[in-house]
Amino acid sequence: MSTNRNLTRTYGHVEPEQRHALLGQRGAVVWLTGLSGSGKSTIAYALERALVSDRHIAYVLDGDNVRHGLNADLGFSPEDRDENIRRVGEAAALFAKAGVIAIASFISPYRAARDRARACVGADRFIEVFLDVSVDVCERRDPKGLYAKARAGEIKQFTGVSAPYERPDAAQVTLDTDKLDVDACVAAIVAYLNDQGSLQGPKA
Amino acid sequence: MSTNRNLTRTYGHVEPEQRHALLGQRGAVVWLTGLSGSGKSTIAYALERALVSDRHIAYVLDGDNVRHGLNADLGFSPEDRDENIRRVGEAAALFAKAGVIAIASFISPYRAARDRARACVGADRFIEVFLDVSVDVCERRDPKGLYAKARAGEIKQFTGVSAPYERPDAAQVTLDTDKLDVDACVAAIVAYLNDQGSLQGPKA
Repeated sequence: MSTNRNLTRTYGHVEPEQRHALLGQRGAVVWLTGLSGSGKSTIAYALERALVSDRHIAYVLDGDNVRHGLNADLGFSPEDRDENIRRVGEAAALFAKAGVIAIASFISPYRAARDRARACVGADRFIEVFLDVSVDVCERRDPKGLYAKARAGEIKQFTGVSAPYERPDAAQVTLDTDKLDVDACVAAIVAYLNDQGSLQGPKA
Repeated sequence: MSTNRNLTRTYGHVEPEQRHALLGQRGAVVWLTGLSGSGKSTIAYALERALVSDRHIAYVLDGDNVRHGLNADLGFSPEDRDENIRRVGEAAALFAKAGVIAIASFISPYRAARDRARACVGADRFIEVFLDVSVDVCERRDPKGLYAKARAGEIKQFTGVSAPYERPDAAQVTLDTDKLDVDACVAAIVAYLNDQGSLQGPKA
């Protein structure tokens, strides 16, 4: 009798095009991949700062905020590392659907795992950014002292030392961080986002 | 020699206050809880539409987009249901940190699970919205025919029929969806978000 019929009325979801037009940006995932020490975190946070300063909505997903929260139940076995990257891909896909530029910063050494993230986000919104720099250079930087520990056998299965890194076949952006400074790397990624229309409203 | 020192320079994260000022909104989580048929999905999508139409960035997390992606590995055992809600709370917290109004729409019948989500998001950004309507009313609506199946024993552990629903002690917003129409429910939530300053830039 008092049943509120209005409540069963179907309210449509916000269409991606409407979201794009209203926010003036299109959700995307910038997926930074590369060895430890290749510059992922530095570039991720510099890119976030550049985008947010320009009133875009962008957010870094990295080990710091994911491993302590969403993926706090996971360890470092091969299965758990795989699940870690799977969930990051799914979370990044949700961010992109919401209209956010998600910036994922993970070594993500396996091509299959990166390709799964791409498939889950949608290839047109997934920008794989390969920080292409040699193990030698990363090891010389060794900002966290991890290469030293890996060489001493204190860390097992360390990418580039005792575990493989599978180079991307066809990254959208490849950056040699031994030659380019941070601002140049950020500028290259922003240029890509601009070219593909992620930072503007839809064309009239 | 050619090591790029700039790359090890520390780039600070975007501070929450900067993000708030630049986006003109403050991230928050609207957590809709209530029985099946209480109106969660309808209100969630109507709220999302209202916020996005007003150029706010908001996004619904619900069974539809989470169970098929981020939580696709989970089933319906008590442990998996618990993990489902845990991950949603963590994902919603990431959205809120990014500056988004995340709208979580889950029965979430257990107080402890909702409280854990609140703790993970931060109490000042977590708005628990209780759709307070009786099992009788929900069962009369039964938009998906689930109560009929539960009564017939085809669905086990159905909240409100054969499994408990723990009412919130102190929800931020309580709505009787048998008396209020959808627009009134959305208006009440928007008013709450406005009052707590989530929809404006920071005060000067």
